[in-house]
Amino acid sequence: MKYPFKITGWGKYLPPHIETANDLSLKINKSSDWIISRAGVSERRVSDIDVDKMGAIAAKEAIGDKPAPDLIINASGVPKQTIPDTSVFIQKELGYEGIPSFSVHSTCLSFITAINVAGSLIHSKAYQNILIVSSDRGTRGRNFNEPESASLLGDAAAAVYLEPSENNLIGLIDFEMSTWPKGASLTEVRGGGTNLHPQDKETEDEDNLFSMDGPEVFKYSLPKVYEMILNVLKRNNLSQSDIDFLIPHQASGKGVKAYWKFGGFDKDKVMDIVSETGNCVAASLPLALVMAYEKKLIKENNLIFLVGTGAGLSIASSIIKL
Amino acid sequence: MKYPFKITGWGKYLPPHIETANDLSLKINKSSDWIISRAGVSERRVSDIDVDKMGAIAAKEAIGDKPAPDLIINASGVPKQTIPDTSVFIQKELGYEGIPSFSVHSTCLSFITAINVAGSLIHSKAYQNILIVSSDRGTRGRNFNEPESASLLGDAAAAVYLEPSENNLIGLIDFEMSTWPKGASLTEVRGGGTNLHPQDKETEDEDNLFSMDGPEVFKYSLPKVYEMILNVLKRNNLSQSDIDFLIPHQASGKGVKAYWKFGGFDKDKVMDIVSETGNCVAASLPLALVMAYEKKLIKENNLIFLVGTGAGLSIASSIIKL
Repeated sequence: MKYPFKITGWGKYLPPHIETANDLSLKINKSSDWIISRAGVSERRVSDIDVDKMGAIAAKEAIGDKPAPDLIINASGVPKQTIPDTSVFIQKELGYEGIPSFSVHSTCLSFITAINVAGSLIHSKAYQNILIVSSDRGTRGRNFNEPESASLLGDAAAAVYLEPSENNLIGLIDFEMSTWPKGASLTEVRGGGTNLHPQDKETEDEDNLFSMDGPEVFKYSLPKVYEMILNVLKRNNLSQSDIDFLIPHQASGKGVKAYWKFGGFDKDKVMDIVSETGNCVAASLPLALVMAYEKKLIKENNLIFLVGTGAGLSIASSIIKL
Repeated sequence: MKYPFKITGWGKYLPPHIETANDLSLKINKSSDWIISRAGVSERRVSDIDVDKMGAIAAKEAIGDKPAPDLIINASGVPKQTIPDTSVFIQKELGYEGIPSFSVHSTCLSFITAINVAGSLIHSKAYQNILIVSSDRGTRGRNFNEPESASLLGDAAAAVYLEPSENNLIGLIDFEMSTWPKGASLTEVRGGGTNLHPQDKETEDEDNLFSMDGPEVFKYSLPKVYEMILNVLKRNNLSQSDIDFLIPHQASGKGVKAYWKFGGFDKDKVMDIVSETGNCVAASLPLALVMAYEKKLIKENNLIFLVGTGAGLSIASSIIKL
């Protein structure tokens, strides 16, 4: 065991408003069949509250009646605003003052990165109880002139509460990540920073919206993800069948299916919520994790494989024992 | 010692173009005397290359002839763009592929947060050699209608390369942070995210620019910072005179002076570069650290106190033995 810890709190927020493929079809001038077959998303949630409020609802559920965390990590893809970082606004919504908080950002992999960072901080006794919150409102950044990526995005938030564990057999067993800047332009929001600043005349509206070449991301990442899965399993003397449940980032219908079509995992052991939630950016993976827990698809002592791809292009895997 | 490690590489980038108080006075309709007395900044650098290129120049200097790092952490205040995170673009400029990378964001405290995260990751053997890069181009976000904050900002980048150390007497001795959302509105860039999205009609140009109520930040944070310094020193059985050098975030002339005026540190032991560089957001603190090293103001076995305030409002302190 690399870092012993226990996930003692689980929370999620799915905005009540459902947008179906049919609703979306009018906005992007494509049929609902086209949307469902290309993106694999039948419906998604659209939030009318902002990411901090969404994250705080999920966080409150994760905290329950436990003590206030002694660290809050925001692990989202897109911030509420440039400064301060979103962890501050989540803390504000939770009604706390004085809790150290910061953000970890690796787009869709922010949660998986944060759970490694949090595990390390618990292991080294820097903090005891850590709250990780992922909250994304991807529908705010949809480019309706790019129908495929616009078909993917949905809104959600999810949160977990981690505590140290004296049981050395549970927690994070392994983590691996790699980042490939050659794929940097495959998934972008080019605006919002110093590159194409909102005040620059050359910044176009589309620069502030989500752009993704899904088929290229899939082609580029598939062999890399497969190789990483095999490496991580091998060095832990595990095979796919030893894993109780695989929780992938819900990138797209095709992206999630790939784990059982090509990855060697049983279809029944791959968490697949993308058809009902869409790709919720960084919130997708923890949302899938929390929903698997709520549906009792995962339970104590289960061996869980977290895996995904993110803008960068980055790929990451983590093995966790609950 | 909490996390033994050694800083084996130091790098910085100061853009060649100097903007004096006189140059700036025309843009904000204030005299150069007003700028220097209010902000304590006589000149600042203005970069015409973007944050990734700036960061990569500093990083190359820090890496020198050492091996490629096995983790790159971007610890900046404002990103190059919303997605992917800036670590990807810094890695791209460095010519690497495949190195895991992500961003840690707590505005002006990003570096001090990242050095705690990196120390923990080295301590728990997740990574060996970690590159931390802070690069900010605050002059891109100046609001010339807000002369005081516009007088503060400057551009810079700095980087350090951390390696594990078998000497348990060097590395990070202590770290403390606290975040106070009541002060969230004191330092902001309200745009750039889901809150006031660039595409929203209600988003005004000023929402995308830096806004700070410097006097209120000073008033609000002074007692908190002082209390934190005393706590951190006390629990390590140290007093101000045991610290070889204090490296504060270069918030403002007044902000840096406060450490010797009210903080109990000798004036000669407080690194003060704000007059020549301005407040370089997250790059300020590592820039001051690297410049202190280059000027031989700090050396092996010195006890260094890193401290600062950041948007949030957050405060943080760290004791490092070189």
